[in-house]
Amino acid sequence: MELQKYIRDVQDFPKPGIGFKDITPLLLNNEALTTALDAFIKLVDGQKIDKVVSMESRGFFFGPMIAKEIGAGFVPVRKPGKLPYETIKQEYALEYGTDVLEMHIDAIQQGDRVLIHDDVLATGGTAEAVVKMVEKAGGIVVQLDFLIDLTFLDGKKKLEGHTVNALIEY
Amino acid sequence: MELQKYIRDVQDFPKPGIGFKDITPLLLNNEALTTALDAFIKLVDGQKIDKVVSMESRGFFFGPMIAKEIGAGFVPVRKPGKLPYETIKQEYALEYGTDVLEMHIDAIQQGDRVLIHDDVLATGGTAEAVVKMVEKAGGIVVQLDFLIDLTFLDGKKKLEGHTVNALIEY
Repeated sequence: MELQKYIRDVQDFPKPGIGFKDITPLLLNNEALTTALDAFIKLVDGQKIDKVVSMESRGFFFGPMIAKEIGAGFVPVRKPGKLPYETIKQEYALEYGTDVLEMHIDAIQQGDRVLIHDDVLATGGTAEAVVKMVEKAGGIVVQLDFLIDLTFLDGKKKLEGHTVNALIEY
Repeated sequence: MELQKYIRDVQDFPKPGIGFKDITPLLLNNEALTTALDAFIKLVDGQKIDKVVSMESRGFFFGPMIAKEIGAGFVPVRKPGKLPYETIKQEYALEYGTDVLEMHIDAIQQGDRVLIHDDVLATGGTAEAVVKMVEKAGGIVVQLDFLIDLTFLDGKKKLEGHTVNALIEY
Protein backbone atom coordinates (compact mmCIF):
# COMPACT_ATOMS: atom_id res chain seq x y z
CA MET A 1 0.00 0.00 0.00
CA GLU A 2 1.32 3.40 -0.96
CA LEU A 3 0.67 5.69 2.01
CA GLN A 4 1.39 8.84 0.00
CA LYS A 5 -1.91 8.28 -1.85
CA TYR A 6 -3.69 9.12 1.43
CA ILE A 7 -1.99 12.49 1.92
CA ARG A 8 -3.99 15.39 0.51
CA ASP A 9 -2.34 18.56 -0.76
CA VAL A 10 -4.22 21.64 0.40
CA GLN A 11 -2.98 24.84 -1.19
CA ASP A 12 -2.73 28.16 0.68
CA PHE A 13 -3.12 26.69 4.17
CA PRO A 14 -2.55 27.95 6.79
CA LYS A 15 -1.33 30.99 4.77
CA PRO A 16 -1.35 31.98 1.09
CA GLY A 17 1.57 30.38 -0.73
CA ILE A 18 1.87 27.42 1.65
CA GLY A 19 1.06 23.89 0.44
CA PHE A 20 -0.22 21.88 3.41
CA LYS A 21 0.06 18.10 3.70
CA ASP A 22 -3.31 16.97 5.06
CA ILE A 23 -3.03 13.57 6.77
CA THR A 24 -6.74 13.20 7.60
CA PRO A 25 -7.49 10.97 4.56
CA LEU A 26 -4.91 8.52 5.92
CA LEU A 27 -6.56 8.54 9.36
CA LEU A 28 -9.96 8.06 7.72
CA ASN A 29 -8.92 4.79 6.07
CA ASN A 30 -8.47 1.87 8.47
CA GLU A 31 -6.13 0.01 6.14
CA ALA A 32 -3.88 3.07 5.71
CA LEU A 33 -3.98 3.76 9.46
CA THR A 34 -2.97 0.15 10.19
CA THR A 35 -0.26 0.14 7.50
CA ALA A 36 1.26 3.34 8.92
CA LEU A 37 1.21 1.99 12.49
CA ASP A 38 2.85 -1.27 11.38
CA ALA A 39 5.56 0.73 9.60
CA PHE A 40 6.18 2.80 12.75
CA ILE A 41 6.53 -0.39 14.81
CA LYS A 42 8.96 -1.77 12.26
CA LEU A 43 11.16 1.34 12.64
CA VAL A 44 11.54 0.57 16.35
CA ASP A 45 12.93 -2.83 15.32
CA GLY A 46 12.56 -4.37 18.77
CA GLN A 47 14.69 -1.76 20.56
CA LYS A 48 13.75 -1.05 24.16
CA ILE A 49 11.78 2.20 24.39
CA ASP A 50 10.45 3.47 27.73
CA LYS A 51 8.53 6.53 26.53
CA VAL A 52 7.04 7.83 23.32
CA VAL A 53 6.90 11.64 23.32
CA SER A 54 4.65 13.50 20.85
CA MET A 55 3.73 17.05 20.11
CA GLU A 56 0.27 18.64 20.28
CA SER A 57 -2.03 18.04 18.45
CA ARG A 58 -1.29 15.98 15.35
CA GLY A 59 1.47 14.02 17.05
CA PHE A 60 -1.25 12.59 19.30
CA PHE A 61 -2.82 10.60 16.44
CA PHE A 62 -0.04 7.98 16.27
CA GLY A 63 2.07 8.65 19.39
CA PRO A 64 -0.13 6.83 21.95
CA MET A 65 -0.75 3.94 19.55
CA ILE A 66 2.97 3.44 18.95
CA ALA A 67 3.58 3.59 22.73
CA LYS A 68 0.86 1.05 23.41
CA GLU A 69 2.19 -1.38 20.80
CA ILE A 70 5.87 -1.27 21.81
CA GLY A 71 5.27 -1.53 25.57
CA ALA A 72 6.11 2.11 26.33
CA GLY A 73 4.34 4.94 28.14
CA PHE A 74 3.07 8.00 26.29
CA VAL A 75 4.07 11.60 27.03
CA PRO A 76 2.24 14.57 25.50
CA VAL A 77 4.17 17.78 24.78
CA ARG A 78 1.88 20.78 24.73
CA LYS A 79 1.65 24.52 24.23
CA PRO A 80 2.02 26.67 27.37
CA GLY A 81 -0.75 26.46 29.95
CA LYS A 82 -2.38 23.31 28.59
CA LEU A 83 -0.81 20.74 30.93
CA PRO A 84 -2.37 20.80 34.41
CA TYR A 85 0.56 19.59 36.55
CA GLU A 86 4.05 21.02 37.08
CA THR A 87 6.02 21.23 33.83
CA ILE A 88 9.46 21.73 32.38
CA LYS A 89 9.56 24.26 29.56
CA GLN A 90 11.60 24.69 26.42
CA GLU A 91 11.72 27.82 24.32
CA TYR A 92 12.25 27.61 20.58
CA ALA A 93 12.58 30.04 17.69
CA LEU A 94 9.75 30.76 15.27
CA GLU A 95 10.03 32.68 12.01
CA TYR A 96 9.28 35.80 14.05
CA GLY A 97 9.82 35.60 17.80
CA THR A 98 9.78 32.53 20.01
CA ASP A 99 7.35 30.00 21.44
CA VAL A 100 7.45 27.57 24.36
CA LEU A 101 6.68 23.86 24.72
CA GLU A 102 5.86 22.10 27.97
CA MET A 103 6.06 18.56 29.32
CA HIS A 104 5.07 17.26 32.78
CA ILE A 105 8.04 17.06 35.19
CA ASP A 106 7.28 13.42 36.05
CA ALA A 107 7.04 12.28 32.41
CA ILE A 108 10.68 11.28 31.83
CA GLN A 109 12.86 9.44 34.34
CA GLN A 110 16.65 9.58 34.36
CA GLY A 111 17.93 7.16 31.70
CA ASP A 112 14.56 6.65 29.98
CA ARG A 113 14.96 5.57 26.37
CA VAL A 114 12.74 7.87 24.31
CA LEU A 115 11.15 7.77 20.87
CA ILE A 116 9.97 11.17 19.64
CA HIS A 117 7.07 11.12 17.18
CA ASP A 118 5.31 13.86 15.24
CA ASP A 119 3.24 13.93 12.08
CA VAL A 120 5.45 16.20 9.98
CA LEU A 121 9.14 17.14 10.05
CA ALA A 122 9.35 20.62 8.53
CA THR A 123 12.15 23.00 9.61
CA GLY A 124 12.89 20.83 12.64
CA GLY A 125 12.55 23.64 15.17
CA THR A 126 9.85 21.96 17.23
CA ALA A 127 11.54 18.56 17.14
CA GLU A 128 14.86 20.11 18.20
CA ALA A 129 13.10 21.76 21.17
CA VAL A 130 11.58 18.42 22.19
CA VAL A 131 14.98 16.70 21.96
CA LYS A 132 16.45 19.37 24.27
CA MET A 133 13.57 19.07 26.72
CA VAL A 134 13.79 15.25 26.85
CA GLU A 135 17.56 15.40 27.39
CA LYS A 136 17.18 18.10 30.07
CA ALA A 137 14.83 15.68 31.87
CA GLY A 138 17.48 12.94 31.74
CA GLY A 139 16.07 10.96 28.81
CA ILE A 140 18.04 9.39 25.95
CA VAL A 141 16.60 10.12 22.50
CA VAL A 142 16.78 6.81 20.63
CA GLN A 143 15.07 7.96 17.45
CA LEU A 144 12.68 10.49 15.93
CA ASP A 145 9.96 9.01 13.72
CA PHE A 146 7.74 11.18 11.53
CA LEU A 147 4.89 10.32 9.22
CA ILE A 148 6.13 12.91 6.70
CA ASP A 149 9.50 14.56 6.09
CA LEU A 150 9.38 17.75 4.00
CA THR A 151 12.99 17.15 2.96
CA PHE A 152 13.23 20.46 1.04
CA LEU A 153 13.07 22.26 4.41
CA ASP A 154 16.09 20.26 5.61
CA GLY A 155 14.73 19.65 9.12
CA LYS A 156 17.18 16.75 9.61
CA LYS A 157 20.01 19.27 9.80
CA LYS A 158 18.72 20.57 13.16
CA LEU A 159 18.59 16.96 14.42
CA GLU A 160 22.12 15.93 13.44
CA GLY A 161 23.56 13.14 15.56
CA HIS A 162 20.11 11.57 15.97
CA THR A 163 18.37 8.79 14.06
CA VAL A 164 15.55 10.39 12.08
CA ASN A 165 12.99 8.35 10.10
CA ALA A 166 9.92 9.21 8.05
CA LEU A 167 7.36 7.00 6.33
CA ILE A 168 6.77 9.50 3.51
CA GLU A 169 9.21 11.99 1.99
CA TYR A 170 8.54 15.04 -0.19
CA MET B 1 -6.35 -3.05 37.41
CA GLU B 2 -8.10 -0.02 38.81
CA LEU B 3 -7.77 2.72 36.19
CA GLN B 4 -8.88 5.44 38.60
CA LYS B 5 -5.51 5.08 40.37
CA TYR B 6 -3.89 6.59 37.27
CA ILE B 7 -6.01 9.75 37.24
CA ARG B 8 -4.40 12.66 39.06
CA ASP B 9 -6.45 15.38 40.73
CA VAL B 10 -5.00 18.81 40.04
CA GLN B 11 -6.63 21.56 42.04
CA ASP B 12 -7.32 25.04 40.66
CA PHE B 13 -6.77 24.13 37.02
CA PRO B 14 -7.54 25.67 34.59
CA LYS B 15 -9.13 28.19 36.97
CA PRO B 16 -9.20 28.68 40.77
CA GLY B 17 -11.86 26.46 42.33
CA ILE B 18 -11.79 23.86 39.56
CA GLY B 19 -10.53 20.34 40.25
CA PHE B 20 -9.01 18.93 37.06
CA LYS B 21 -8.80 15.22 36.24
CA ASP B 22 -5.34 14.75 34.76
CA ILE B 23 -5.18 11.62 32.59
CA THR B 24 -1.45 11.86 31.76
CA PRO B 25 -0.39 9.33 34.47
CA LEU B 26 -2.65 6.78 32.75
CA LEU B 27 -1.05 7.50 29.37
CA LEU B 28 2.41 7.23 30.94
CA ASN B 29 1.83 3.66 32.13
CA ASN B 30 1.75 1.08 29.35
CA GLU B 31 -0.33 -1.38 31.37
CA ALA B 32 -2.95 1.27 32.19
CA LEU B 33 -2.97 2.47 28.57
CA THR B 34 -3.51 -1.08 27.36
CA THR B 35 -6.18 -1.84 29.99
CA ALA B 36 -8.11 1.30 29.01
CA LEU B 37 -7.90 0.49 25.30
CA ASP B 38 -9.10 -3.08 25.92
CA ALA B 39 -12.03 -1.72 27.94
CA PHE B 40 -12.95 0.67 25.10
CA ILE B 41 -12.89 -2.22 22.59
CA LYS B 42 -15.11 -4.25 24.91
CA LEU B 43 -17.69 -1.42 24.97
CA VAL B 44 -18.01 -1.71 21.18
CA ASP B 45 -18.94 -5.37 21.69
CA GLY B 46 -18.41 -6.35 18.08
CA GLN B 47 -20.87 -3.81 16.67
CA LYS B 48 -20.09 -2.50 13.20
CA ILE B 49 -18.55 0.98 13.44
CA ASP B 50 -17.41 2.85 10.32
CA LYS B 51 -15.91 5.94 11.94
CA VAL B 52 -14.56 6.97 15.32
CA VAL B 53 -14.92 10.73 15.85
CA SER B 54 -12.89 12.50 18.57
CA MET B 55 -12.45 16.02 19.80
CA GLU B 56 -9.25 18.06 19.91
CA SER B 57 -6.84 17.50 21.65
CA ARG B 58 -7.27 14.94 24.43
CA GLY B 59 -9.79 12.90 22.45
CA PHE B 60 -6.93 12.17 20.04
CA PHE B 61 -5.09 10.00 22.60
CA PHE B 62 -7.48 7.06 22.38
CA GLY B 63 -9.69 7.88 19.36
CA PRO B 64 -7.30 6.75 16.60
CA MET B 65 -6.29 3.64 18.59
CA ILE B 66 -9.91 2.59 19.07
CA ALA B 67 -10.58 3.16 15.35
CA LYS B 68 -7.54 1.14 14.33
CA GLU B 69 -8.52 -1.80 16.57
CA ILE B 70 -12.20 -2.01 15.56
CA GLY B 71 -11.60 -1.67 11.81
CA ALA B 72 -12.93 1.90 11.56
CA GLY B 73 -11.55 5.15 10.18
CA PHE B 74 -10.68 8.06 12.45
CA VAL B 75 -12.15 11.58 12.20
CA PRO B 76 -10.70 14.52 14.14
CA VAL B 77 -13.03 17.31 15.29
CA ARG B 78 -11.14 20.55 15.77
CA LYS B 79 -11.41 24.18 16.80
CA PRO B 80 -12.08 26.68 13.98
CA GLY B 81 -9.33 27.22 11.42
CA LYS B 82 -7.28 24.14 12.33
CA LEU B 83 -8.52 21.73 9.66
CA PRO B 84 -7.02 22.46 6.24
CA TYR B 85 -9.79 21.19 3.92
CA GLU B 86 -13.46 22.22 3.55
CA THR B 87 -15.40 21.72 6.79
CA ILE B 88 -18.86 21.56 8.25
CA LYS B 89 -19.28 23.63 11.40
CA GLN B 90 -21.31 23.35 14.55
CA GLU B 91 -21.83 26.13 17.07
CA TYR B 92 -22.28 25.32 20.75
CA ALA B 93 -22.89 27.27 23.94
CA LEU B 94 -20.17 28.00 26.46
CA GLU B 95 -20.64 29.39 29.96
CA TYR B 96 -20.30 32.83 28.39
CA GLY B 97 -20.86 33.09 24.66
CA THR B 98 -20.47 30.40 22.01
CA ASP B 99 -17.75 28.42 20.27
CA VAL B 100 -17.55 26.44 17.03
CA LEU B 101 -16.31 22.95 16.17
CA GLU B 102 -15.30 21.79 12.70
CA MET B 103 -15.05 18.47 10.88
CA HIS B 104 -13.93 17.80 7.30
CA ILE B 105 -16.87 17.56 4.86
CA ASP B 106 -15.65 14.20 3.49
CA ALA B 107 -15.23 12.60 6.93
CA ILE B 108 -18.69 11.08 7.35
CA GLN B 109 -20.64 9.33 4.58
CA GLN B 110 -24.43 8.97 4.54
CA GLY B 111 -25.36 6.06 6.83
CA ASP B 112 -21.94 5.76 8.49
CA ARG B 113 -22.15 4.15 11.92
CA VAL B 114 -20.22 6.41 14.30
CA LEU B 115 -18.61 6.03 17.70
CA ILE B 116 -17.87 9.37 19.41
CA HIS B 117 -14.96 9.35 21.86
CA ASP B 118 -13.55 11.99 24.17
CA ASP B 119 -11.47 11.88 27.34
CA VAL B 120 -13.95 13.55 29.72
CA LEU B 121 -17.74 13.99 29.73
CA ALA B 122 -18.38 17.17 31.72
CA THR B 123 -21.48 19.28 30.96
CA GLY B 124 -21.95 17.47 27.64
CA GLY B 125 -21.99 20.64 25.54
CA THR B 126 -19.12 19.62 23.28
CA ALA B 127 -20.36 16.05 22.89
CA GLU B 128 -23.86 17.29 22.02
CA ALA B 129 -22.36 19.55 19.33
CA VAL B 130 -20.43 16.62 17.86
CA VAL B 131 -23.58 14.46 17.82
CA LYS B 132 -25.41 17.21 15.89
CA MET B 133 -22.53 17.62 13.46
CA VAL B 134 -22.25 13.87 12.79
CA GLU B 135 -26.02 13.60 12.24
CA LYS B 136 -26.01 16.66 9.97
CA ALA B 137 -23.39 14.86 7.87
CA GLY B 138 -25.66 11.79 7.59
CA GLY B 139 -23.98 9.64 10.24
CA ILE B 140 -25.69 7.43 12.83
CA VAL B 141 -24.33 7.86 16.36
CA VAL B 142 -24.07 4.32 17.75
CA GLN B 143 -22.49 5.24 21.08
CA LEU B 144 -20.43 7.82 22.96
CA ASP B 145 -17.51 6.41 24.96
CA PHE B 146 -15.58 8.51 27.45
CA LEU B 147 -12.62 7.73 29.65
CA ILE B 148 -14.16 9.76 32.49
CA ASP B 149 -17.72 10.85 33.30
CA LEU B 150 -18.00 13.72 35.81
CA THR B 151 -21.49 12.51 36.70
CA PHE B 152 -22.15 15.44 39.09
CA LEU B 153 -22.24 17.71 36.00
CA ASP B 154 -24.98 15.54 34.49
CA GLY B 155 -23.60 15.59 30.95
CA LYS B 156 -25.64 12.51 30.03
CA LYS B 157 -28.79 14.63 30.16
CA LYS B 158 -27.71 16.53 27.04
CA LEU B 159 -27.12 13.19 25.28
CA GLU B 160 -30.48 11.58 26.07
CA GLY B 161 -31.56 8.94 23.58
CA HIS B 162 -27.94 7.91 23.00
CA THR B 163 -25.82 5.14 24.50
CA VAL B 164 -23.22 6.80 26.73
CA ASN B 165 -20.40 4.85 28.42
CA ALA B 166 -17.45 5.81 30.60
CA LEU B 167 -14.60 3.73 32.03
CA ILE B 168 -14.33 5.88 35.17
CA GLU B 169 -17.06 7.80 36.99
CA TYR B 170 -16.77 10.57 39.59
